[in-house]
Amino acid sequence: MMKVYFDNAATTAMDDQVIEAMLPFMKSHFGNPSSVHSHGREVRSAIEKSRKKVAELLNASPSEIFFTSGGTEADNTALVCGIDTHEITHAISSPIEHHAVLHTLEVLAQKGKIKLSLLDVDHQGNIDYDQLTTLLKANPKSLVSLMHANNEIGTLNDLERIGTLAKEYGAFFHSDTVQTMGHYRHDLKNLPVDAIVAGGHKFHGPKGAGFLYVRKDKKIHPFIHGGAQERNMRGGTENVIGIIGVAKALELAYEHMEEHQSQIRSLKARFIEKLRAEIPGVEFNGMSENIDQSLYTVLNVSLPPSESNSGMLLFNLDLAGISASGGSACSSGATVGSHVLRAIGAKADRDSVRFSFSRFNSLQEVDYTIERLKELYSVEA
Amino acid sequence: MMKVYFDNAATTAMDDQVIEAMLPFMKSHFGNPSSVHSHGREVRSAIEKSRKKVAELLNASPSEIFFTSGGTEADNTALVCGIDTHEITHAISSPIEHHAVLHTLEVLAQKGKIKLSLLDVDHQGNIDYDQLTTLLKANPKSLVSLMHANNEIGTLNDLERIGTLAKEYGAFFHSDTVQTMGHYRHDLKNLPVDAIVAGGHKFHGPKGAGFLYVRKDKKIHPFIHGGAQERNMRGGTENVIGIIGVAKALELAYEHMEEHQSQIRSLKARFIEKLRAEIPGVEFNGMSENIDQSLYTVLNVSLPPSESNSGMLLFNLDLAGISASGGSACSSGATVGSHVLRAIGAKADRDSVRFSFSRFNSLQEVDYTIERLKELYSVEA
Ligand SMILES: Cc1ncc(COP(=O)(O)O)c(C=O)c1O
Ligand SMILES: Cc1ncc(COP(=O)(O)O)c(C=O)c1O
Repeated sequence: MMKVYFDNAATTAMDDQVIEAMLPFMKSHFGNPSSVHSHGREVRSAIEKSRKKVAELLNASPSEIFFTSGGTEADNTALVCGIDTHEITHAISSPIEHHAVLHTLEVLAQKGKIKLSLLDVDHQGNIDYDQLTTLLKANPKSLVSLMHANNEIGTLNDLERIGTLAKEYGAFFHSDTVQTMGHYRHDLKNLPVDAIVAGGHKFHGPKGAGFLYVRKDKKIHPFIHGGAQERNMRGGTENVIGIIGVAKALELAYEHMEEHQSQIRSLKARFIEKLRAEIPGVEFNGMSENIDQSLYTVLNVSLPPSESNSGMLLFNLDLAGISASGGSACSSGATVGSHVLRAIGAKADRDSVRFSFSRFNSLQEVDYTIERLKELYSVEA
Repeated sequence: MMKVYFDNAATTAMDDQVIEAMLPFMKSHFGNPSSVHSHGREVRSAIEKSRKKVAELLNASPSEIFFTSGGTEADNTALVCGIDTHEITHAISSPIEHHAVLHTLEVLAQKGKIKLSLLDVDHQGNIDYDQLTTLLKANPKSLVSLMHANNEIGTLNDLERIGTLAKEYGAFFHSDTVQTMGHYRHDLKNLPVDAIVAGGHKFHGPKGAGFLYVRKDKKIHPFIHGGAQERNMRGGTENVIGIIGVAKALELAYEHMEEHQSQIRSLKARFIEKLRAEIPGVEFNGMSENIDQSLYTVLNVSLPPSESNSGMLLFNLDLAGISASGGSACSSGATVGSHVLRAIGAKADRDSVRFSFSRFNSLQEVDYTIERLKELYSVEA
């Protein structure tokens, strides 16, 4: 049986070159980067080179890059400390944000620290820009948190447009860029965002390592207090191998980005074309069927009602060796309903499955998956 | 030139068996543990085995163990969320705690969330137990945060005694056990602590990975919000290799603990003996010269005033290939004065250096270091 991994929006396999870069820091270079002796200095130097590399790729300054334990910690830091540092009392977000953003803002709202306004989203997951403008007008000095690409349905927000509005009304603009980092180029000297984030494992780097970018003139307090690591912005002995891995993974992603984009776009195009040809009544959630106007790694498929697959589709695919996802992979064990699909009003009588692709996937895997889906859905035809 | 690493309280080299355990999760087992398909399930299972292993070794329940990005995050979580969850308004700590504890509590005090009382410490770094009792009596339902072993001067607190007092007055007792985890046995069914912490890199595991233990009946809210990972206690895709590594390192530590203890005690005893014989006027900071009543991995040496070494001792040792430390290794780059040595009133006209040992050190390394120290201090004799 073929084994197909189509859950790359949940996590990706590490690139061999990333592993190669990390290994010396597991084996011989083990010093604490805060130590001033030779064992420490060689590691400090590697970390600062990684920071410089990340900054260079994003057209930012090294002093704007802070390594974290991943996208979730980076989101928490930007939100909790952005709000605290800049004395913000109102936040604007959307109901289809990742839980790293949504739960964090909800807790701040429950504690009475902020008033939280969630924008309406349409059936494709697009926000209402007029409503955003109205809210910004009524609440100057808000925090705006809107993701770049939605991890479940691939809908893209226009960061340029949101950022320009945020700037106009003096708002702090954070964007959860976990799904686009390493997949699109971010030019931070020109993009009007104040904070963006990354999780290395979404672009063939390690899990549990990521970074936060905070614009120089929007500095925030630390979230984790302790030693003077990360220029006093994040206490704790550094996850050295994680940092080395994240920077290497981003470097590789930028080196071959256009090539990978077109390879993955071809996979997605073939997948859509074949689904339409082979599965009568197939539909797509969000913007994901639009290759040019959605996250090119994600396809969220809505399958026609089927007795033999209802509630069992992921399980049936798993049995056929295909790993895909129902929603985001962030609910320990249980498959709970997706808050994103609910918010965009996806049809509840149909099974939705997210297939997400990487440069390690092949056209053969697409064809194999379509064959299995055809079998699963032909039973009742 | 011999290369000697005597800074094991700052960080340790990873054990080869730890690296071996981590490698499969870098290479083939890359799934997201929250994914329900086969790629996810194999990783989920490995994480839960690691949690069970850690719990078993500490005589705790798996539901009391939460993996974190290290000791610092674990300390922050216990303090910030312990105080928040249990509506605590007064904290008792000491001026020689690690910055992960001290800075966190200071920030909470500055924000007006708590009143902070710091116990007096004597010249050896011992706390005043009567003062602790008085404070607990005056402030029932306090949080007590007192470390097990001090990372600079090796002074041990009596957790049994502190915990019994805390219990008597209904206080929440957190202990920073970063320096003793994997070096002493902790029996959490019998030790009266509510929360303790670990950082894997202090016992030959990976940096940027650790855990928090919270007693079942003292549950706290999450610090990092996001997905449902760690039983809803810590959002964020798990640092899988870190978790595997921490658990393996703890397992190895427990397997050979007595053997390693006696090996390291011998190194420390020889070091003290030779220093006394070869460096006239040598003294020791804190309790560290007392082999049985201090952290056996740490020796904090106070050297006689010397023109050629004053302020240059660590640098001179580094030139001789010896890595040691002035204080804790947590101040990025700069050697700032140690808050611990200041608090115990260490003599300012003498150079203090912390030598800290591990099972990877040898008697030859002790002898080599003594020789170099003798040379450095004989110049002016
Ligand atoms: C006593 C003590 N507490 C906390 C920490 C912080 O732990 P970590 O290095 O895992 O962030 C350290 C080490 O740096 C320590 O020695
Ligand atoms: C959009 C989005 N934000 C945040 C996260 C969380 O990042 P991490 O997995 O690094 O904690 C994820 C992935 O899980 C995501 O897809």
